[in-house]
Amino acid sequence: MKQNIYDDPIFFEGYMNLRDSGRTYNDFLEQPAIRGELPNLKGKRVMDLGCGTGGLGKYCIEKGASSVVGVDISEKMISRALKENKDEKIMYVCSPIEDLSKQTESFDLIVSSLAFHYIKDYESVIQKLHTFLKPGGMLIYSIEHPIVTARKDMKNWWRNVDGERLHWALDHYRDEGRREQHWYVDGVIKYHRTIPTLINGLIGQGFVLEKMLEPLPTPDGMNQMPDLKNEERRPSFLIIKSRKNAEPL
Amino acid sequence: MKQNIYDDPIFFEGYMNLRDSGRTYNDFLEQPAIRGELPNLKGKRVMDLGCGTGGLGKYCIEKGASSVVGVDISEKMISRALKENKDEKIMYVCSPIEDLSKQTESFDLIVSSLAFHYIKDYESVIQKLHTFLKPGGMLIYSIEHPIVTARKDMKNWWRNVDGERLHWALDHYRDEGRREQHWYVDGVIKYHRTIPTLINGLIGQGFVLEKMLEPLPTPDGMNQMPDLKNEERRPSFLIIKSRKNAEPL
Repeated sequence: MKQNIYDDPIFFEGYMNLRDSGRTYNDFLEQPAIRGELPNLKGKRVMDLGCGTGGLGKYCIEKGASSVVGVDISEKMISRALKENKDEKIMYVCSPIEDLSKQTESFDLIVSSLAFHYIKDYESVIQKLHTFLKPGGMLIYSIEHPIVTARKDMKNWWRNVDGERLHWALDHYRDEGRREQHWYVDGVIKYHRTIPTLINGLIGQGFVLEKMLEPLPTPDGMNQMPDLKNEERRPSFLIIKSRKNAEPL
Repeated sequence: MKQNIYDDPIFFEGYMNLRDSGRTYNDFLEQPAIRGELPNLKGKRVMDLGCGTGGLGKYCIEKGASSVVGVDISEKMISRALKENKDEKIMYVCSPIEDLSKQTESFDLIVSSLAFHYIKDYESVIQKLHTFLKPGGMLIYSIEHPIVTARKDMKNWWRNVDGERLHWALDHYRDEGRREQHWYVDGVIKYHRTIPTLINGLIGQGFVLEKMLEPLPTPDGMNQMPDLKNEERRPSFLIIKSRKNAEPL
């Protein structure tokens, strides 16, 4: 069964309050980085997986994309997207990523922001996305970093007697699979995978790796959220750029 | 200046005693893994960077390679290699990897076992290695894992009151560069680089990434060195396979 935690009312309220604050790791760290990695979007057909309220897809339209298909499992998210980022060039689809059917090569770019760690079967999704892309099309996604998702215990850092962070804890790295955590509600499920599993899974399905990125915060983010300086000590996210084959988009 | 710690007499004696024990992480973890990743070697020309006493190069000859050039900075190592693994098909060269000059495309395979973390300027070495390889030739190397080399403090794990390992400490990940440690002698210098630096450095110089691997110990190793089970909790090594272009060797 696919997780649809975003339709849990308590989770949704907590998450939306965070998001509406405009002061999140997404705002200052992950979104600037993934947007900075997008290719020239003029006239391109884009799919946005785990589109949430649609901000990234709308950005793609603003940058010249001819159309965007935004996919999200959560009805509440799609409903918000239709309010906040309605656009005649954007079609929203409420569906689990895993349930999309294979299709002819239609897209120039598939982008996915912090959704793949919710997916149980990575490889079959990658295989399917390969069928969605035109030759030369790109898949760009961000994910919680495997060195973050690895450890099963929630307490993932230690402080000294002065309250300073000593280090981050790493453990259970090779034990791939389900991780349960409390994030607004109990039972938020993520799936941990090693870096080779992520990368080799792409290559094995016919993608060429183009770039890996562990984003650093924007200067504005460093001012507004001083904790972001910890990204220099341990990266929270990993961004992976790959291409259906080696020809340019 | 290139580090030549292996010619330090105290280091060399300590290291050779360890090596001669036949019970090391190389024996049970890194060497089985990197050997398992080598392509068909029949008639191939191989370069072995940081060849040490020549065991890996000799293995390549046994697997059908037509010739091996073994390169090591340490005269003591080359001298041992000439005793232990002399072979008419192997030429040993005593030189820092960094000092090899660019040359015409000569090799089908460049292999390097646990040497690249001693190299200060990774990208210029990768650029040079690209000139050594025939089109379709492979570069396969192992390196201490960036999640191991990241932290500057020597103490990298915590135990509870029962002496059980709690977790590994991760820190300073984005702060690339020099790490000094005590290993038989003070002042052993290694260079920490992030995973994207390693991977993007290859791609940027014209290599295609084929596979990443975080090796697990052999069953025999698990019996003889029980600490190796910790590899399931945090990998010590990273093996990276890449190709000069996408055509098979």
